[in-house]
Amino acid sequence: MNYPSHLLQLIESMKKLPGVGSKSAERFAFEMLKWKSSELKALGNLIDTLPQKLQACMECGALRGEEPCLFCKDERTTSSTLCVLASSKDVYAIEATRTFEGLYHVLGGLISPLEGIGPGQLNFSKLLERIEKHKIQEVIIALDSTVEGDATALYLKKVLASSPARISRLAFGIPMGSSFDYVDGGTLGRAFVDRSVY
Amino acid sequence: MNYPSHLLQLIESMKKLPGVGSKSAERFAFEMLKWKSSELKALGNLIDTLPQKLQACMECGALRGEEPCLFCKDERTTSSTLCVLASSKDVYAIEATRTFEGLYHVLGGLISPLEGIGPGQLNFSKLLERIEKHKIQEVIIALDSTVEGDATALYLKKVLASSPARISRLAFGIPMGSSFDYVDGGTLGRAFVDRSVY
Repeated sequence: MNYPSHLLQLIESMKKLPGVGSKSAERFAFEMLKWKSSELKALGNLIDTLPQKLQACMECGALRGEEPCLFCKDERTTSSTLCVLASSKDVYAIEATRTFEGLYHVLGGLISPLEGIGPGQLNFSKLLERIEKHKIQEVIIALDSTVEGDATALYLKKVLASSPARISRLAFGIPMGSSFDYVDGGTLGRAFVDRSVY
Repeated sequence: MNYPSHLLQLIESMKKLPGVGSKSAERFAFEMLKWKSSELKALGNLIDTLPQKLQACMECGALRGEEPCLFCKDERTTSSTLCVLASSKDVYAIEATRTFEGLYHVLGGLISPLEGIGPGQLNFSKLLERIEKHKIQEVIIALDSTVEGDATALYLKKVLASSPARISRLAFGIPMGSSFDYVDGGTLGRAFVDRSVY
């Protein structure tokens, strides 16, 4: 399309966002043309300063703004439970459930030989340090139920074998509120094996 | 959600884009956290400088970058056909069909009493000037087939009544490649009335 080059560049840049193709990126760009100059300045500035304003907490790996990390605060460090996650986004998913008040540890990804991500690139060394420092008694593995998630969980189990902490992994089973028709055989089989007293 | 404030602001800003809800905006923001600092700087700058880099052509109302307007170039001004459109985005949709090589005139919207947009807010006065200046013989109304599009087309017809130019409007009918099952009654009826010799 014969768009002015500035618009083309904006469209190409927006297309890098997840799930955004040419059509959506064009709609976004034309919508922005209707925005006030101040709104554009604000969004441009928010994006531009993202690396300075948001960083991974040096301790737990979760996202933190300019204030101290919310998940490393004193009331949490008294906990003896630590939840291991792949990404800082997952922290907020767990927080939203309001079922966990312990410490988090973000690995920064999952082991994936296909993408060239080995244990070396993930934040495992700090994990062992923290387990010792906070006298953690239970490590909860909260990783995806995918090949990469399973591989990472297995690796974690091996790494933590010498640690006195108990290791658990989130339960697999039928999603709440879903009907049998929509549950695959693997999940159903696992739900059978892991059935609990009712 | 307990996101750092900078992230929250970015999410709120992205939610103003069309079709982007909380979930998508969150995915966009977290995806941007993985981008390189240089990519964020580039996108931030593209958005920030949008009002300076892209403007509506003073003549036709289409979008232009820093170069002269592509649609007001000499080879086009010899044309005696002028196509009236609601928005600058529509220019590119018509251009993509490669069926029109005349002049464009962007109104900048459609008459919509509900949204408080009357003829006064749209670029009608310049239109009459241009029809005279370029000795236009045919004005093609290329507006949406909606209540607002019809109202604007009717208003145009009234405004142009004293002009010697012929007035036409894009054909209504069955969309190319579509089956009867998916064509509504109104469209089918119109296609019947406007049938052509085959």
